[in-house]
Amino acid sequence: MQDLLTGFLSLLQVCKVCNRQITPFKMFEHTTYIRVRYGETDQMGYVYYGNYSLYYEQGRTEAIKSLGISYKKLEASGIMMPVAEMKVRYKGPANYDELLKVVSYVLEMPSRSMTFHTKIFNEEGRLINEGETKLMFVHGATRKPCSATNELIEALLPHFNTN
Amino acid sequence: MQDLLTGFLSLLQVCKVCNRQITPFKMFEHTTYIRVRYGETDQMGYVYYGNYSLYYEQGRTEAIKSLGISYKKLEASGIMMPVAEMKVRYKGPANYDELLKVVSYVLEMPSRSMTFHTKIFNEEGRLINEGETKLMFVHGATRKPCSATNELIEALLPHFNTN
Amino acid sequence: MQDLLTGFLSLLQVCKVCNRQITPFKMFEHTTYIRVRYGETDQMGYVYYGNYSLYYEQGRTEAIKSLGISYKKLEASGIMMPVAEMKVRYKGPANYDELLKVVSYVLEMPSRSMTFHTKIFNEEGRLINEGETKLMFVHGATRKPCSATNELIEALLPHFNTN
Amino acid sequence: MQDLLTGFLSLLQVCKVCNRQITPFKMFEHTTYIRVRYGETDQMGYVYYGNYSLYYEQGRTEAIKSLGISYKKLEASGIMMPVAEMKVRYKGPANYDELLKVVSYVLEMPSRSMTFHTKIFNEEGRLINEGETKLMFVHGATRKPCSATNELIEALLPHFNTN
Repeated sequence: MQDLLTGFLSLLQVCKVCNRQITPFKMFEHTTYIRVRYGETDQMGYVYYGNYSLYYEQGRTEAIKSLGISYKKLEASGIMMPVAEMKVRYKGPANYDELLKVVSYVLEMPSRSMTFHTKIFNEEGRLINEGETKLMFVHGATRKPCSATNELIEALLPHFNTN
Repeated sequence: MQDLLTGFLSLLQVCKVCNRQITPFKMFEHTTYIRVRYGETDQMGYVYYGNYSLYYEQGRTEAIKSLGISYKKLEASGIMMPVAEMKVRYKGPANYDELLKVVSYVLEMPSRSMTFHTKIFNEEGRLINEGETKLMFVHGATRKPCSATNELIEALLPHFNTN
Repeated sequence: MQDLLTGFLSLLQVCKVCNRQITPFKMFEHTTYIRVRYGETDQMGYVYYGNYSLYYEQGRTEAIKSLGISYKKLEASGIMMPVAEMKVRYKGPANYDELLKVVSYVLEMPSRSMTFHTKIFNEEGRLINEGETKLMFVHGATRKPCSATNELIEALLPHFNTN
Repeated sequence: MQDLLTGFLSLLQVCKVCNRQITPFKMFEHTTYIRVRYGETDQMGYVYYGNYSLYYEQGRTEAIKSLGISYKKLEASGIMMPVAEMKVRYKGPANYDELLKVVSYVLEMPSRSMTFHTKIFNEEGRLINEGETKLMFVHGATRKPCSATNELIEALLPHFNTN
């Protein structure tokens, strides 16, 4: 793997003058915090590499909840969002009982799929993990692909409109 | 907790003459083997206490499969078996990559519920874990309690008949 | 299993006059909240029976943290607390994205072991799960049993003193 | 993500004449089988996307074991192999109780890192998941990077030598 999120990372430079993130285009971003459980570590003493998927998932759930959309209700209404692709880069360890900062980004408006980028920071503010997950939209009954719901599109639009 | 499985354990004495297990009443028993995964350990260096539930479950699935019954098909046919109670006694650690011997016992014919006893032995043959899980029978559609299926009863009967 | 926590439950009656819990003897109690992850459900549509162990663990960690004691630091100082016994009673399902109320109780002063009782309530306030976990104190280096640390004893004492 | 394993996949064409895999360069390959547990599914009814990490891990463990090398012993000897990168492509679902065929590939000789490719097939022989994991070599004591052990290099060499 060359650079996993090269293009993505280049967007996240911080302006040295105003100390704000430079975003050449609009996007949606949400932060949540997750406490590492003992059972999520392995005998290496750090969070098991497979358990970041749970953190990404929790980040995504909270991110769209902040838009006023419940994935639980979405699924109850007949739309499911199975994961189609995942990429993870492990840059440093996470420890038991650490309070991780999990930042979820949506960089593109969803259509048939929706991609989340996730960055995880440890308690010292160091970036220890980043990844992306691409989710499809499917009808729950038929498991056939479909498009993002209007509700989701409308909730995201304000974050992508250039005013 | 006093003695978790006192009555149960007393059944599992081995005859010093014939080296066979002494079973004062009939029962059904099945053995399967499970290899411990790295991700199932925690930072103490042993299998996380919560992961034995997965081993019990795998033991139960294989046990009833050996009776010619697939829990998968049972569920597809509309009967679910949620767990109502679990007791676990942790007697020793299990290590990464260890091949555990998982023995599942059914000591009583199921009616509205079915109870499995499980004993787990490490590679040196030492009993490291024992527990029991009580599962209910419920209709998948209504989630209302029901009785064990005839298929299951008939498959178990030969193991409990005294001839 | 007869009644799992009969004695325990009888303690938790609520006074009909003052609406406070009647505690015939002193104890320590702590409440935390846990959001159910998608990955913690199984195909029955509810939280997998094995995942309650993670909720219990998180409840215990937060409970002793509220006493000013970090289990992480305890372990770093050379004391480990492996689980010796667990009992669980599943009384109702927990759903994805539900915010569970997890109440942890310590009913007896720890000595060579420490027992936590846990009660989990769903969003409607219904008791859906209760259990207990008995943890041993062991030296991390030797894995030999030892006694509860003075720090822990002193932190708990005020909750058990009768004034 | 464009094509996850484009180069990789192009290697795995099957010769229409001899029905054997065409491998333009040498590699190491190992197959193991994993039965899906109930607790590994989620409420969508399929294996949770995060649990494939466990299958990859088990595939890797068995793969190097087939070379006569125990990762357990490697770690006991002071070398750890934390995961640095993972990519996964989910092409189809895996069901409870399904016996998955997990094929692990090493396409390049390890140096400071070692990359495994994994392909998972369902019971009908359909490719449902593929991914890769890049693991680093680190000293357990210092957690500093190091090189692959001679033992591992020597065990792999015969699979890469062109005779």
